[in-house]
Amino acid sequence: MNKKEVEILLVEDNASDEELATIALKKHNITNKIQIARDGVEALEYLFGSVDSETLKCVGPLVVLLDLKLPRIDGLEVLKRIKSHPEAKKIPVIVLTSSSEEKDIVESYRLGVNSYIRKPVDFNQFTEAVNQIGLYWLLLNKQSP
Amino acid sequence: MNKKEVEILLVEDNASDEELATIALKKHNITNKIQIARDGVEALEYLFGSVDSETLKCVGPLVVLLDLKLPRIDGLEVLKRIKSHPEAKKIPVIVLTSSSEEKDIVESYRLGVNSYIRKPVDFNQFTEAVNQIGLYWLLLNKQSP
Repeated sequence: MNKKEVEILLVEDNASDEELATIALKKHNITNKIQIARDGVEALEYLFGSVDSETLKCVGPLVVLLDLKLPRIDGLEVLKRIKSHPEAKKIPVIVLTSSSEEKDIVESYRLGVNSYIRKPVDFNQFTEAVNQIGLYWLLLNKQSP
Repeated sequence: MNKKEVEILLVEDNASDEELATIALKKHNITNKIQIARDGVEALEYLFGSVDSETLKCVGPLVVLLDLKLPRIDGLEVLKRIKSHPEAKKIPVIVLTSSSEEKDIVESYRLGVNSYIRKPVDFNQFTEAVNQIGLYWLLLNKQSP
């Protein structure tokens, strides 16, 4: 898939959450243009070409759906890298996590997250939440060119 | 209304847009807890007590719905003040504007806006957009304590 065509970068290490989220996004024709990254390293490599690069490789429109508990490089570090980068900071980042720890919420907002959503435990509520996220960020929200 | 009870600070100088947005938010029981500010000065006074204060007076949960073209102090300046403040930056700010100027979108994201929505011109589409904004930010999004 061409990077220009990707609309959602889904950063998720849990295979069943990945599958559910993908189904929810495709179901209502919100988008088929989903790129999966299974840890923080894959996410940073997708966005910047490599973990250490300071050059944004990815061109929008793009929304990042970001889990927090990730192998290798965790979600808060990915968020920090995106939101401290002068160009990348324009990309909406939505944390989607099972964490209800106050420190994760506080730190996410401190780092500049656009939105923080707790993963509902219930199957139907989870797909409905992903559906709402997709509708809001891909259809209603206006992205920076 | 006690500041603790306010859920949405609507910063809007256009009386008919204010009325429409208020109706849309109340209609689906999303919230009755709406505070109106009619320009940037009123918005900053509500949040910080005075225009020049560096102390956040307002306690959450709170979402700011912010028009850009405002008398006295404009929306981008209000956004800058909120997002450059160590405590206030956690408050979700959604720009809701009729501006489709690229520079407004780019600058809003540069300053750290959480979301940027163009006001639909059509009456029904406008109330539906406000409805979606309310559902997303007050019910789905998890705010920082």
